Order: sequence, then C-alpha cells, then structure tokens
Amino acid sequence: MYIEQPEKSGIETLSLILKEINSAIEATNAPKIKIENTKKYKADVILYDPETQSRESIGEKISIEENRTLIRPYDDIDIIAGQGTAGKEIYHQLTQISIVPDIYLCCCGGGGLIAGTSTYLKDKFENIKSYSAEPFGFDDTKKSLNNGKILANEKGHQSICDAIITPQPGNLTFPINLKTLEDGLVVNDEEVKRSIKILAEHLKIIVEPGGAVAATAALTKKINLNNKTVVVMISGGNIDLDMFRSL
Amino acid sequence: MYIEQPEKSGIETLSLILKEINSAIEATNAPKIKIENTKKYKADVILYDPETQSRESIGEKISIEENRTLIRPYDDIDIIAGQGTAGKEIYHQLTQISIVPDIYLCCCGGGGLIAGTSTYLKDKFENIKSYSAEPFGFDDTKKSLNNGKILANEKGHQSICDAIITPQPGNLTFPINLKTLEDGLVVNDEEVKRSIKILAEHLKIIVEPGGAVAATAALTKKINLNNKTVVVMISGGNIDLDMFRSL
Repeated sequence: MYIEQPEKSGIETLSLILKEINSAIEATNAPKIKIENTKKYKADVILYDPETQSRESIGEKISIEENRTLIRPYDDIDIIAGQGTAGKEIYHQLTQISIVPDIYLCCCGGGGLIAGTSTYLKDKFENIKSYSAEPFGFDDTKKSLNNGKILANEKGHQSICDAIITPQPGNLTFPINLKTLEDGLVVNDEEVKRSIKILAEHLKIIVEPGGAVAATAALTKKINLNNKTVVVMISGGNIDLDMFRSL
Repeated sequence: MYIEQPEKSGIETLSLILKEINSAIEATNAPKIKIENTKKYKADVILYDPETQSRESIGEKISIEENRTLIRPYDDIDIIAGQGTAGKEIYHQLTQISIVPDIYLCCCGGGGLIAGTSTYLKDKFENIKSYSAEPFGFDDTKKSLNNGKILANEKGHQSICDAIITPQPGNLTFPINLKTLEDGLVVNDEEVKRSIKILAEHLKIIVEPGGAVAATAALTKKINLNNKTVVVMISGGNIDLDMFRSL
C-alpha cells in the first residue's frame, strides 16, 4: 500500500532531517542509486576508496575542520538504539500471531543493527539464539566473536555486499554482540545473488546484496533450522537496477 | 522481515487450502510464474483464450459435470467481503498514524477488491472519494459507472494488465461500485510500465501490471491530488521476471 500525505509525509520528514546533513561519505563502489538518492536529499556526497581510505578519518577531519556533528553509521549508542527499534517491531508482529522464535539471523557490517535488535529480542525472548551473517572475506564479526576480541578483516577481498563491508567490528557494537550473539555465519557472493532472485520471485521485494545475507544464510542452510522458528532480517534496497536486472 | 515457522506457516496453510482446489482456469496470456506457482499448489491449470472463450462458462461446465464447487474470482459475496479485509488493514494502519484519507485509488477488473475495500473505507471515512483505475480498452467499470448500467468492453483491445482484463463488471460487484465510486480513471500500458519501474526503484517492490494501475493513475495525475491525502492500492506481484527485467 502506498500512502501519500500532503501535510508532512514520511519522505518529507526524512528530507527535512537530511537537509540538515551537509555531507555524506560513500564508498566509490556504492550503488549509483544510493549516491543519486543521497544527492536528492541535498547532501554533498564525498566518495572514498574503502581499500585505501578510512571513512571514519575523513568524517572526523571534516567534523573538526568545519565544526560539524559526525553521525557514525553504527558506533554510536543512539544509532544502535534506533536500529534496535526494528527488534521492537519484530517483537510486536510475532506476539500478535503468538510466535516465540528460536533463532534470529541478521546481516552484520559494523554491527549496529544486530546489536540493537538482538539486545531487544533477547530481552523479550530469553531463549532466542542470534547469529550474524556476513559476506566471505568480511567476516570480521565472526572471527572476533570466536576469538573474544576485535579482529580486522584481511585486505584484498571484494564483495558485492557493499553496505556491510566494514574493516572491523565497532568499539561500541562488538562488546554488545559478544554478549548477545551465539556465532557468525558466512555466505559468498554467488549464494547472495541466488537469494536476491528467490526473494524477488517469492516475496516480490528488491533487496540489496548486503541486506540479503541473513536470508542467504537461511536459504543455504548455514545452520540447522529444522523444527526451528526463525526470524530473518532483510534490510535495504539500495541495489542498482542494472545489477538487479542481471540477476 | 521474513518469518519462517515450522509448525504451520502461512504458505503451508495456503497450500492446504489449495490442495482442495483441483483446477484453476487461467488465460493463455497469464504470466508463466502465475501458472507455475498454481501448479506447485497441485492444481491442474486449464488455459483459455480470453478473446474467444469465457472463463465463467468453462468453470460452470466443469463444476456441473464433475460436481465441484466453483469459486468465482470477484462475483461472489464472500470473495468481495474477503477482499474487503484489505480495507480494514488500511483503516487500522491509517488510524494508528492519525490520518484521514481524502481519496482512495484502486485497480479494478471484475471489481471485487474495490467493491469490498471501498465499502469498508466509506463506512469508516465518510468523506473519502473512491476511484477505480483500469487499463485503456478495458475501462468497462468507468463506462458502466458513467452510464449507470453494466456495459461490456469493445473487442479487439490488448493490455499487459492481464490480471484485470475482464469482459464487463460483475453482476454483484457493479451495484456496489455504482454506490461507492465517484468515477473511473484510465491508464495506458506505457504509463503502467513506467510506474512499475518507479515502484521498483523507490518502494523496492515488484508489482504486476494489473496491480500497478492505481499507482499509475496517481503518478500520471489522472485526477488532481493537490493537497489531498491519497491511499493507493498496490496489489499483486505475478509478473514474469523476463518482463520485469525488460522494464
């Protein structure tokens, strides 16, 4: 259902908030549609090369030089809490249909979304087991969980899952995830491509690669889901239609 | 969000219902994906040519000869009421965010969905104005509304909006629609194709042509929507991915 409201629509509200944002830092491999849409919200888009540059340092430099507020995409307690409200929505939808989930699968880049949502879900469903899903070569959260400390990804890998390609778990998100996650699951790009197609054919939704990794982990059975009630987070539709078409 | 439940999922329930259905009658121009999915639910698919054959007579013949129950897709009071529950969902979503809509746009083939939903919405929002949206050449509801009696489409037209290509308004649906609708809006195939692309790019959903006609009427401004709160029904994702790709 599509709702258009003249006074103050969701899109207008978002655009009001984003008018306050002067710059957005995007990777050079970010989808064109994401860059175009960000520009439509009147932000300057600053491109950086994730292989050789640090988004964090660029942002910090601008914020100091121009006296601006830096909003980090995951390592910020308010962002984690805000992303956690998706867990609240999941909880409400499940309780309305009297479902108690056994397993929660969620995509993981810097780890903000999974930190917020799994904290909320664990509070409501004490026996739920949460797993991060990451692309091959960028499974820093899995490695860090297994070693009990923050480990960075090795250099030299590539993935189509641009939105969740982060160098290492966040300083704020990792301690939360270490407490709430069971383990991490890893999927490869070919598996992600197939699941984007399955999601299009069967759920009629357009999902970006990074947003489809948890569904991919479920569809390719990276853990045993037999006789389990599973919640899978699918998040984000910033995929270039050229890439979508080619799938 | 994707929820998988082991005991009895929505898909399993639907498939249990559909196992009781022995045959489904589909037009020869129906999307492959719709035919394939219907077969997956174990129904025999009987194809007919909508230009020269009547789906209604084929169904009636089978139901008499084989002593089966015929479920009509729109001219059945229970189907109309069932489709009307989408109106109830709209009402609940709108009241949660304190919105009173001015205009309701809905796709219209036989007129069951719009009859059920606009009856419900008119009951809850007394000043709402409802409009049917139909493809060019198949605007039988608009013509019938304007003439106050059931009129059939002229022969010889074609449209990509296969799901809502019906010869004329239903005997049960039309009297309801005559009471609840203001008028009908007409869109052409090229406009529908463009709106399917817009819905994919901005709402990240895959919509079939027939399900996109109301959104098309809004996007191409078939009526003045300035300063109005508008609810647009988008319904159905049975589009062959080949066609979707080509858009």
